[in-house]
Amino acid sequence: MEYRKIKGEAEDRDAVVEDVENLRGKPLSISDNLATIGESRIDRAKWKRKSVVTLALTVLTSSQAILIVWSKRAGKYEYSVTTANFLVETLKCAISLIVLGKIWRTEGVTDDNRLTTTLDEVIVYPIPAALYLVKNLLQYYIFAYVDAPGYQILKNLNIISTGILYRIILKKRLSEIQWAAFILLCAGCTTAQLNTNSDRVLQTPFQGWVMAIVMALLSGFAGVYTEAIMKKRPSRNINVQNFWLYIFGMAFNAVAILIQDFDAVMNKGFFHGYSLITVLMILNHALSGIAVSMVMKYADNIVKVYSTSVAMLLTAVVSVFLFGFHLSLAFFLGTIVVSVAIYLHSAGKMQR
Amino acid sequence: MEYRKIKGEAEDRDAVVEDVENLRGKPLSISDNLATIGESRIDRAKWKRKSVVTLALTVLTSSQAILIVWSKRAGKYEYSVTTANFLVETLKCAISLIVLGKIWRTEGVTDDNRLTTTLDEVIVYPIPAALYLVKNLLQYYIFAYVDAPGYQILKNLNIISTGILYRIILKKRLSEIQWAAFILLCAGCTTAQLNTNSDRVLQTPFQGWVMAIVMALLSGFAGVYTEAIMKKRPSRNINVQNFWLYIFGMAFNAVAILIQDFDAVMNKGFFHGYSLITVLMILNHALSGIAVSMVMKYADNIVKVYSTSVAMLLTAVVSVFLFGFHLSLAFFLGTIVVSVAIYLHSAGKMQR
Repeated sequence: MEYRKIKGEAEDRDAVVEDVENLRGKPLSISDNLATIGESRIDRAKWKRKSVVTLALTVLTSSQAILIVWSKRAGKYEYSVTTANFLVETLKCAISLIVLGKIWRTEGVTDDNRLTTTLDEVIVYPIPAALYLVKNLLQYYIFAYVDAPGYQILKNLNIISTGILYRIILKKRLSEIQWAAFILLCAGCTTAQLNTNSDRVLQTPFQGWVMAIVMALLSGFAGVYTEAIMKKRPSRNINVQNFWLYIFGMAFNAVAILIQDFDAVMNKGFFHGYSLITVLMILNHALSGIAVSMVMKYADNIVKVYSTSVAMLLTAVVSVFLFGFHLSLAFFLGTIVVSVAIYLHSAGKMQR
Repeated sequence: MEYRKIKGEAEDRDAVVEDVENLRGKPLSISDNLATIGESRIDRAKWKRKSVVTLALTVLTSSQAILIVWSKRAGKYEYSVTTANFLVETLKCAISLIVLGKIWRTEGVTDDNRLTTTLDEVIVYPIPAALYLVKNLLQYYIFAYVDAPGYQILKNLNIISTGILYRIILKKRLSEIQWAAFILLCAGCTTAQLNTNSDRVLQTPFQGWVMAIVMALLSGFAGVYTEAIMKKRPSRNINVQNFWLYIFGMAFNAVAILIQDFDAVMNKGFFHGYSLITVLMILNHALSGIAVSMVMKYADNIVKVYSTSVAMLLTAVVSVFLFGFHLSLAFFLGTIVVSVAIYLHSAGKMQR
């Protein structure tokens, strides 16, 4: 549903672009003025689309976390996680193809929306999936050094690594105020997650820190690389880009099934232990995945980090009502810091 | 010692002002240029003086907190606090008079440094002391609703109340970035003080919150009012202003001795229970008090709040080495937030 709504936005934008083309045909004396109006309309449409995809990502990420809490409360994972991941990738692929089919019917097949591609274009698509695979493998080893709540706290290093790699690889600049905001976002998120056992993370051995930093860099690199892929060909239809991204995701997850859960799948079946909540989680993950792609194409990694941070806070607030969770003073303080960070990020926009 | 050093700065500034007077006599063609150089030298001298008094306040406040920890470790308070407070005011008064005497000898008695005053000038001086008295009386009652660590956390409301009253009463403006920084300062200080029992403060009853807010307003008002007094007559010698401020402090504390500790003083003597550490604390409080006055005259309440916040963090770090204290993750996060707040306060300076 969210996805179709966003799609509608994208169509709105095309309409605006056409309007501008029409305006350009007018006499020269007023064309400058009209072009400005046109540009501001494009800007507004772009801003609107950026806002909608960001909102969608926030809501989906937040409900994703709520589903995880819900499923944990309902009992242990009975299904094999690798099959679920494979289905998420398959579903994303299928959605991309369905939307693409509709576009072909209305617009015809063009250079920008054809599925066939060159080796030069496709060669980069497996890289993000490969990076995530390495990161997920490392995840098993880090628990030798850090406990699960400690790992949650160390994961906030992702925020900093994303910012640094965004600067280095995409060569995009943040103003000093925006850097300050980014540091605050990291500190605020960590503060919001503090609990009585958090101090244990300070006793993390050196190897644990190194692994946490390597994982943060891998995760940040995968995100930044995805953005680079999506933006390298701005006119290329996002559904084609998604298709190629997700087809490699499917392939990597198929390998993961073979390595980790081959016996379970053979003996108990592919869908063993699936419940309504498992289906909801797969659906949610697929939609969030598409929302992430859209944020990468129409916004950027910085927006993604802010969006998922807000989702984390939102999850906690919703959990108070759903599961009777208790909010700590640290949570309130972290929320204040994150809110100020969001304000500063927009207030600190560089003058271009 | 600190005080004399600061005094030296003030003399430097006077020298700079004289230089500028000389420059003004030069031919018109280059006088603009030279006046600018002169102004920038005054600015630099002012900035230097502001920095020195701020640094002095930070170091004194920090060592004050360390002395308190030290004295608590050494055992309970054996002396009567009212007599110590009275001696602090007396010492401040004496220091002001001694410095004033020196100034009279070198500069002669002028309108700005004569001790005699008009009713119109002196009438406002008892007000800050009276406000602090009311606040200290309330302090006894708030412990019916909040425990001591909870009160430490609620005291951070002072930061916000000072900012608001500074804006309303002194009509000085902060930029939006500076307001954001001020909110961060409050959140960061509170985060740094978090411990396992901090969440109890969320259970503070309504009356407790009201009292905490009233106390924060009283404390903020006293600070802002002192700044208003000090700055109303910019050319008036600070030592005269201090003398009048402290003489009323002596009077109020004399009343406090009569009310609270009359019997103890009569039976055990004025100086009963005094130790080396008591003497050091009195000395430190007197010097800090003078540093506060100087910050009020040469800087402002905002600088004071930042300075005392940094002192709080400094105290914790020094306590690690002195008393083997343990720093929490919350402390690190709070320190990061406070550091960013300080950066933003200076980065967010309004263009005038």
